[in-house]
Amino acid sequence: MCDRPKNTDVRLRLPAVCFIWQTAMIILFGIFIRYDSESSPYWVEYKRDHNISSDAENDFYFRYPSFQDVHVMIFVGFGFLMTFLKRYSFGAVGFNFLIAAFGIQWALLMQGWFHSLDYSDGKIKIGVENLINADFCVASCLIAYGAVLGKVSPVQLMVLTLFGITLFAVEEYIILELLHARDAGGSMVIHTFGAYYGLSISWMLYRRNLDQSSRLQGSVYHSDVFAMIGTLFLWMFWPSFNSAIANHGDGQHRAAINTYLALASTVLTAMAISSLFQKHGKLDMVHIQNSTLAGGVAVGTAAEFMLMPYGSLIVGFCCGIISTMGYIYLSPFMEKHLKIQDTCGIHNLHAMPGVIGGIVGAITAAAATEPVYGSEGLIKTFGFEDHFEHRTPAEQGGYQAAGMCVALCFGIGGGIIVGCILRLPIWGDPADDNCFNDEVYWEVRDKQNVKESGPRLIIHPSIHPSIHPSIHPSIHPFSIPAFPGSPINHEI
Amino acid sequence: MCDRPKNTDVRLRLPAVCFIWQTAMIILFGIFIRYDSESSPYWVEYKRDHNISSDAENDFYFRYPSFQDVHVMIFVGFGFLMTFLKRYSFGAVGFNFLIAAFGIQWALLMQGWFHSLDYSDGKIKIGVENLINADFCVASCLIAYGAVLGKVSPVQLMVLTLFGITLFAVEEYIILELLHARDAGGSMVIHTFGAYYGLSISWMLYRRNLDQSSRLQGSVYHSDVFAMIGTLFLWMFWPSFNSAIANHGDGQHRAAINTYLALASTVLTAMAISSLFQKHGKLDMVHIQNSTLAGGVAVGTAAEFMLMPYGSLIVGFCCGIISTMGYIYLSPFMEKHLKIQDTCGIHNLHAMPGVIGGIVGAITAAAATEPVYGSEGLIKTFGFEDHFEHRTPAEQGGYQAAGMCVALCFGIGGGIIVGCILRLPIWGDPADDNCFNDEVYWEVRDKQNVKESGPRLIIHPSIHPSIHPSIHPSIHPFSIPAFPGSPINHEI
Amino acid sequence: MCDRPKNTDVRLRLPAVCFIWQTAMIILFGIFIRYDSESSPYWVEYKRDHNISSDAENDFYFRYPSFQDVHVMIFVGFGFLMTFLKRYSFGAVGFNFLIAAFGIQWALLMQGWFHSLDYSDGKIKIGVENLINADFCVASCLIAYGAVLGKVSPVQLMVLTLFGITLFAVEEYIILELLHARDAGGSMVIHTFGAYYGLSISWMLYRRNLDQSSRLQGSVYHSDVFAMIGTLFLWMFWPSFNSAIANHGDGQHRAAINTYLALASTVLTAMAISSLFQKHGKLDMVHIQNSTLAGGVAVGTAAEFMLMPYGSLIVGFCCGIISTMGYIYLSPFMEKHLKIQDTCGIHNLHAMPGVIGGIVGAITAAAATEPVYGSEGLIKTFGFEDHFEHRTPAEQGGYQAAGMCVALCFGIGGGIIVGCILRLPIWGDPADDNCFNDEVYWEVRDKQNVKESGPRLIIHPSIHPSIHPSIHPSIHPFSIPAFPGSPINHEI
Repeated sequence: MCDRPKNTDVRLRLPAVCFIWQTAMIILFGIFIRYDSESSPYWVEYKRDHNISSDAENDFYFRYPSFQDVHVMIFVGFGFLMTFLKRYSFGAVGFNFLIAAFGIQWALLMQGWFHSLDYSDGKIKIGVENLINADFCVASCLIAYGAVLGKVSPVQLMVLTLFGITLFAVEEYIILELLHARDAGGSMVIHTFGAYYGLSISWMLYRRNLDQSSRLQGSVYHSDVFAMIGTLFLWMFWPSFNSAIANHGDGQHRAAINTYLALASTVLTAMAISSLFQKHGKLDMVHIQNSTLAGGVAVGTAAEFMLMPYGSLIVGFCCGIISTMGYIYLSPFMEKHLKIQDTCGIHNLHAMPGVIGGIVGAITAAAATEPVYGSEGLIKTFGFEDHFEHRTPAEQGGYQAAGMCVALCFGIGGGIIVGCILRLPIWGDPADDNCFNDEVYWEVRDKQNVKESGPRLIIHPSIHPSIHPSIHPSIHPFSIPAFPGSPINHEI
Repeated sequence: MCDRPKNTDVRLRLPAVCFIWQTAMIILFGIFIRYDSESSPYWVEYKRDHNISSDAENDFYFRYPSFQDVHVMIFVGFGFLMTFLKRYSFGAVGFNFLIAAFGIQWALLMQGWFHSLDYSDGKIKIGVENLINADFCVASCLIAYGAVLGKVSPVQLMVLTLFGITLFAVEEYIILELLHARDAGGSMVIHTFGAYYGLSISWMLYRRNLDQSSRLQGSVYHSDVFAMIGTLFLWMFWPSFNSAIANHGDGQHRAAINTYLALASTVLTAMAISSLFQKHGKLDMVHIQNSTLAGGVAVGTAAEFMLMPYGSLIVGFCCGIISTMGYIYLSPFMEKHLKIQDTCGIHNLHAMPGVIGGIVGAITAAAATEPVYGSEGLIKTFGFEDHFEHRTPAEQGGYQAAGMCVALCFGIGGGIIVGCILRLPIWGDPADDNCFNDEVYWEVRDKQNVKESGPRLIIHPSIHPSIHPSIHPSIHPFSIPAFPGSPINHEI
Repeated sequence: MCDRPKNTDVRLRLPAVCFIWQTAMIILFGIFIRYDSESSPYWVEYKRDHNISSDAENDFYFRYPSFQDVHVMIFVGFGFLMTFLKRYSFGAVGFNFLIAAFGIQWALLMQGWFHSLDYSDGKIKIGVENLINADFCVASCLIAYGAVLGKVSPVQLMVLTLFGITLFAVEEYIILELLHARDAGGSMVIHTFGAYYGLSISWMLYRRNLDQSSRLQGSVYHSDVFAMIGTLFLWMFWPSFNSAIANHGDGQHRAAINTYLALASTVLTAMAISSLFQKHGKLDMVHIQNSTLAGGVAVGTAAEFMLMPYGSLIVGFCCGIISTMGYIYLSPFMEKHLKIQDTCGIHNLHAMPGVIGGIVGAITAAAATEPVYGSEGLIKTFGFEDHFEHRTPAEQGGYQAAGMCVALCFGIGGGIIVGCILRLPIWGDPADDNCFNDEVYWEVRDKQNVKESGPRLIIHPSIHPSIHPSIHPSIHPFSIPAFPGSPINHEI
């Protein structure tokens, strides 16, 4: 399907999708979405009725700072992390922006129906916690975007997001409500699901001749620095991510500490492996940009449990190694033998650490004891209340493991189905020789300049034709000067 | 006035202005500014006297996180949003930094005299809310800077800020105190005023021959990515902007939710229009960088009202369309026929959405009913207390509309007056053929390199003079290689 | 020592250090580190026993937003501030990331033993305040890194950090516990210590022939813009830095206000001096990137005292002048005559303002009176309790001054010792002609391209050999085209 000439003009398709879906959002929000008791003007009465002494008790003040940190991770963190490609920074930041903005609306509805539906009036009541959950939900689709970065059209990304959010909400409902598994940082529901969802789609959309775009698949010096902006904001705010919806008080406090520690130790082992397996021990920015984050993924589930500070360090230690190794050995293997082209290496950053996180969570839960948590603490931490008051930690461990499997199945199954849909030749995806190229979907202003730089590079050999091959090995149909908008434009 | 040779040496003028004004600030602060009851050591007694149970009741904890988000919007958001020009990034970030740092001090005084003066001792008592308001006040001047970006000297910007802050404080006092209009997010007092203030100044400073600088008016690939940093931080933190000074509890909570939703829907419609009106449906970074923010401006006034979630989506939906259309049709029209040169297109991002926001606010206020807000909620939300206890929502709507007009008049009137002052030939503004050029006011280190790149580009034709015109259409007096410090320097 | 050929291959040394030290951290954390009462599940019981009414009383909610701001300053602020060099951005952000991630772990232990050891069970109990203090502790080492930026290997940086954190913890214990000096923003314990520690090390590692790397010591246009990201995040979040561990309530509130004001006035004077001492009054990015921050350093100690708003402005006013002057006159003098090569000019940004901050703190403390602070406020602000209840403000001033001296001695003494260790020829530091070059420790992808750009530049003279010297003054052994990975790569 990737060989015939492509029509990448999305002039009608993209606007149509945006307008229709946004209109649908407005209608559905009009029917279903209302403010909850803490964000409606009735809060004054509500406070009195529940004799709440102070506005400081409004959930807004417990969660809003964490929400803003998560918000930064979604839009700047994920967006800039993907700007490393030399000529796909617009697509990385811009399409990330587009699908996240759509996704959070759809997520408020999908998650609302499952978690926040007020049966008294059939409305979804939203507050700051719903906003955080919507951002979480979108994160899974942005992870998936990482696998197909540069190879799909914005229309395909909107479809990927529509189905991704839907699958996420169902999977999350099964894991958190039915199985009553705990997953504060979403190692299972967000990272494992999102990563396998993206990898399956990437597998379905395998491009035999992707090497025709290899000239564009690398980074340039400054694009790597831009990517570090994404890396650092993800790394710094991950403690907020894992603690954002944890229990008030010790829950959020402990989740932040555990994540802070796991991430710190990941950095050291990721750098160590990167240096150890490189010629002359030179560090590779790809590893620093990605593997340093693996620890945050892997403590997601157990962040609010009594993982203990040293436990967090151990988890981070292992994930730094595994993730970096993955970039060195596994990614090439998967592309060559499994036909999975994973642009950002999400398998190493989200999939493996996510699975590890699920396992760590199951073990930590199964190992929970009353002396460690205190009787009330144990109940509060694992929510052994109502239907679940008779559940033991050991059982909880089992349900955690079950949740892990659900996330995997939804990710892989959903990805294959959505992948089939995205294979339809109607979405305006780029040709194999034009992937990772912002020119396809963006007006790039410095394109014209190539007209000047082109001739200059070709003149040289014309001076001494004899030396042409030796000094210009790169003058072939796909040499950079031959395509518009290469970094050469920085010249003029 | 723009044709005679210009003296852009601000060596004496800029330091003089900075030192004199900063010294004046110190003296005025010494006379007037003191800590308020929540930031003075008497807080311990204050707490006991007002039997406040906990330090958590200190306004610092209700507002500081939002303050920091607003602070980021002012310095990184506005600063980087304007870095899109290929060679004016220093001026964008640096002068934004300079005038914001001066503006917040002057704003603390001006707003203090109007809002925080303690008549018992004639002192202005400041706390975190004053810091937020100072940032807000400065925002209006930074918006105005967007219209004249690249065409004025730092001295002119200091003057623009001095008068802008002064006008803002008066206008804000009339709108919020005398008319008792509500404007949590400042659609009227900040955006409408600031935008028309800047546009009027730009109109007064019209440059007939600005096209002589057209070589510099575009962006390059990485400058567009830098601008996205500004866009995203503005977009992400806008909910904090609109909720920062809203009522504690449900007020802040609701304002954040409404802004979050409005911004999300703006992104989709802005992208849709950008693609729809472009050749081959290619997206334009200018629209993504700016129009995606219009929704935040437009829900500013109504953010804390019962706009309802779907209402926020509708406002965002419309503003995304109008703002993007503005960039495509209105900006060229205004430059050609109205002689308004609006570098950043603030008319599309702040002026139009600001006016829409004022109207939405007036309508929402007029439509307020007790069943929707609850009797106490209605009073608290609109401040129907003291002198205003007998005001009806309908009347409030009228006063909101009146406030809108006041903002417009102050913006346009003030801009014209200040514009006249800035026309004086004493401020060191750049010549028409040297606008948008950091070389004028900044030491640019990689300038020298042009000495090498210049000759190289000129040699080529010397090989085959015949082909000169064909391969070097750009070798004319204003071709990039001819001016120092073009991105060509990245080469060496 | 810098003349013999260097072996900069850290392939075994760096991984060895990372693995061994991280393993040690895990063991020590396993033995010593536990959650404190506010981050352990026993918080539920704790709340009841101390009849704490609400989770909002958990220290997490008082400090976490400030913690996240500080975290951003450490990783993005310091990291990007150092990206200004044209080809050392990877090292700036990457090594900053590495040593900070190691440092915070070691700091939790070192500071824990001195401040948070629970003698009942010999464990260190950590909460959010420990995380903030760990970040503070690391800040001192990152400041030191600024002096040796580009001239040391990552292994040397790890050693610098290991000893730096250790020295910091001891010095901090003496100053804050034994002398009971107050230093909320760390003017003394963080900035003065860190700066003199780094300067002494830089003095010990003096490189006679560093000018051989002068081609790389400058900035390019976009690297200066990247550096502004660091500057602005440091500037914006400094109020959080100085208030993060101040007393709840008025302490944090006042510290934030004072810092906000000091920083604002610094910007104006720094810009003024930068323009005044430059040819044609052109501003220098080096001053804007660094000197605008001096005010935040200098109000660190006195931030929570009654410095008064105008006092903060005065401190900022002076520091902006002194710091910028330092860059213009002192740094060249120190390099030429004192043999101190200070890459980032930390002497101007941290050392001098830090000392000023200590002095301002001592004076402000000595001048404290009960009418100004209130009897309870005085006790709370200066901690005149327990052993210190009979201390007078005058005495406190003396102890503050003593603390200043301790910080200086530890900085200079410690730096000389650690400098000796770092002189050992085993750490893989770069040769004099290869400093400030990411190629040494990083895989730089666009290196290869030089193969093409090299010949091109050399061909020109071959056309008119006669004009070679005139048009290519820069073709000498160290001309940029001759080394791999110069910005020239942006071309292809």
